[in-house]
Amino acid sequence: MTTRKLGRGVALVGAGMSKFGSFPGKNSRDLFVEAFQEMRASVDKGLDPRDIEALFIGNYSSDLFENQGHTAPIMADWVGLTPRPAVRIEDACASGGAALRQGLLAVASGMYDMVLVGGIEKMTDLPTERVTDTLATAADMVYEIPAGFTFPGFYAAMATAYMAQYGAPLDVFLKVGLKNHDNGALNDKAQFGQRISSIMEARKASAAKKGNPIPTWETEMDFLRDPRANITIAWPMRLYDCSPISDGAAAVLLVSEEIARKFTDAPLYYIGSGQASDAALHDRPTLTSLPSAKLAAQSAYEMAGVKPADIDVVEVHDCFTIAEIIASEDLGFFKSGEGWKAVEEGVTARSGKRPINTSGGLKSKGHPVGASGVGQVLEIWKQLRGQAGERQLPGAPRLGLTHNVGGTGQTTVVNIFERR
Amino acid sequence: MTTRKLGRGVALVGAGMSKFGSFPGKNSRDLFVEAFQEMRASVDKGLDPRDIEALFIGNYSSDLFENQGHTAPIMADWVGLTPRPAVRIEDACASGGAALRQGLLAVASGMYDMVLVGGIEKMTDLPTERVTDTLATAADMVYEIPAGFTFPGFYAAMATAYMAQYGAPLDVFLKVGLKNHDNGALNDKAQFGQRISSIMEARKASAAKKGNPIPTWETEMDFLRDPRANITIAWPMRLYDCSPISDGAAAVLLVSEEIARKFTDAPLYYIGSGQASDAALHDRPTLTSLPSAKLAAQSAYEMAGVKPADIDVVEVHDCFTIAEIIASEDLGFFKSGEGWKAVEEGVTARSGKRPINTSGGLKSKGHPVGASGVGQVLEIWKQLRGQAGERQLPGAPRLGLTHNVGGTGQTTVVNIFERR
Repeated sequence: MTTRKLGRGVALVGAGMSKFGSFPGKNSRDLFVEAFQEMRASVDKGLDPRDIEALFIGNYSSDLFENQGHTAPIMADWVGLTPRPAVRIEDACASGGAALRQGLLAVASGMYDMVLVGGIEKMTDLPTERVTDTLATAADMVYEIPAGFTFPGFYAAMATAYMAQYGAPLDVFLKVGLKNHDNGALNDKAQFGQRISSIMEARKASAAKKGNPIPTWETEMDFLRDPRANITIAWPMRLYDCSPISDGAAAVLLVSEEIARKFTDAPLYYIGSGQASDAALHDRPTLTSLPSAKLAAQSAYEMAGVKPADIDVVEVHDCFTIAEIIASEDLGFFKSGEGWKAVEEGVTARSGKRPINTSGGLKSKGHPVGASGVGQVLEIWKQLRGQAGERQLPGAPRLGLTHNVGGTGQTTVVNIFERR
Repeated sequence: MTTRKLGRGVALVGAGMSKFGSFPGKNSRDLFVEAFQEMRASVDKGLDPRDIEALFIGNYSSDLFENQGHTAPIMADWVGLTPRPAVRIEDACASGGAALRQGLLAVASGMYDMVLVGGIEKMTDLPTERVTDTLATAADMVYEIPAGFTFPGFYAAMATAYMAQYGAPLDVFLKVGLKNHDNGALNDKAQFGQRISSIMEARKASAAKKGNPIPTWETEMDFLRDPRANITIAWPMRLYDCSPISDGAAAVLLVSEEIARKFTDAPLYYIGSGQASDAALHDRPTLTSLPSAKLAAQSAYEMAGVKPADIDVVEVHDCFTIAEIIASEDLGFFKSGEGWKAVEEGVTARSGKRPINTSGGLKSKGHPVGASGVGQVLEIWKQLRGQAGERQLPGAPRLGLTHNVGGTGQTTVVNIFERR
């Protein structure tokens, strides 16, 4: 992939998100307004929204989820940006990451000094089985879906292949979920912001209250291994391996580097971006790596002039727990086939040497698909600015990376941000 | 709207399209391959597709029309661009125009030297009434659609308001359609490439063959005024006022200005682009103009440093005949309320002083919605390069403009190209 120097630098000066969750009665425009308001409040020196020159909105399918197409100008209208140009960017679950990249290019081009990048998805109006079918349209509807696959199945196939190829044990997937719930418990925006231990104790209490036999789980792993507590969705992926169905929105403000300090003394600089496409999974040489993720990462590192070891904060696309392990290898943090060992050894925990998904990840925080790639940036924003509260990483982190995947890797976008 | 100078210039060096029409058994990927192949053949000095660095694909809703989301990487794969970044751009029926603008920004940013911009839509797999419902999702599903509107109704309301405000007669709409069929009859890519006179004669011949009474139409206007021949869709919009339901694809190649002459001695320069958003129609102060079109045109003219009178070739978004008349005013070619007189006087005919839609427009050429904005550029490409055959405008036209509308004007994109 060719990497070139942009015409000018771009900075991130504001970021906000709605809570992720299931919100009957709220549609994506309501959620986007919430994200926008938090973004606005986050701009240290204040923002006049009339200065925003364009909107790039990541959204997978308001068409199928809300029966609403042409969603970009509606979002612009609801946050008061009309008549600014508004464009929807779609790359399935990587729509948010791709929208960020479009915002980067738009400011770098010289056309705009300030753009809003948003992400939205309202998924919970449909029944669960229809959500799964709707998400399946992000695979190849000609060659893959007629064969009976949906996304839990695709990632289950990857997990099975990974276990076979590298000898990873079943337990390692459970440990990714356990870690991400530990992190998400410290994130008030998380949809499932409970530790597995809390969920386990609540189940016991509920059984006791109903006069049912009290489950004998002693540890969180006992709970996660229990096939009645943690049902199989598509073997070896179980309930706590799968990110949830979510509603949510996120918004960030990008400006040209020259004007960044008008808005804050602590801007982040958007120094790297890589994107790659790939054939659908059925037509790929490997199940244990995403070639698009490797290429996107390589482009982003080259553009930023940094190496994997330089990155301090990492949000990866853990739509399923296996995806986090593969991501940690594709991004160059661990060698192929060794990502699972890092999980076993606690390296990717918040207290480890290579913390991953301190926000809780998609697993705990939630996965409103078009919003997820923008939502990831919120964690980078908070961690690099020292505003991550109880989950703040020590050592004044300086470099953050987001990894956002569409489908099974037909798209991956990697973005890198720096505090200077 | 702010207009700024781009980091560097961008040129158009190749353009191709599929035939527009109804193609059972072809999906959007098949049509995009056809457009890509014609684009490739159009590059005078040849093109190695491996040099293409990214794909921006305009598409309204493969989700709803083909049950296929995440369509951008599939399109990239089918024309051999994998693993290049591929992004879908959506702004309803302005998706193609918006994709062009993204391509412009992407090259101007310095990230890429060469990008492919495509447009696709495959609409005819659904029954007609479901197509109308699907298109209706481009309006506001909360406030407008529950009131009973679909797009023929929206544009009928505009036509009625226009007649009331400016005294335009009913016949003027028919004359727009008549003109566009005259033009489309010279375009071998047109879905309905027949003159109204040919359609009329064919109907007479068919009646004679069946032994039915032969209709007494003497002129094309007799035919168009006959409510049995030209049925009312939503008064005053009749069948020949409405663009058809279409399948089709288009593709153009954008490169940085510095390398344009490696590909052709006759590049076009992409010198102006404007885009604006608007509230949905129910929440707008006027029915007889699109504020977003006026703003987009103003931005594009300012960026290009040209005036309406300088433009030689114009493709406007005639999704309905009233839309062409309003467009001709919003673009500054005629004063408000006087566009209809220009039609009456033949000014907008191919032989007139201000020819509009020499390609046949959406009415005759067809309207595969996500492809239309890119398809419009094909006409500019041919006219400015003197390759428009029988419909070639005289006088070696130098400046071409496309006007591409999403919904009822929640989005308008105006692009301007120059031959130097």
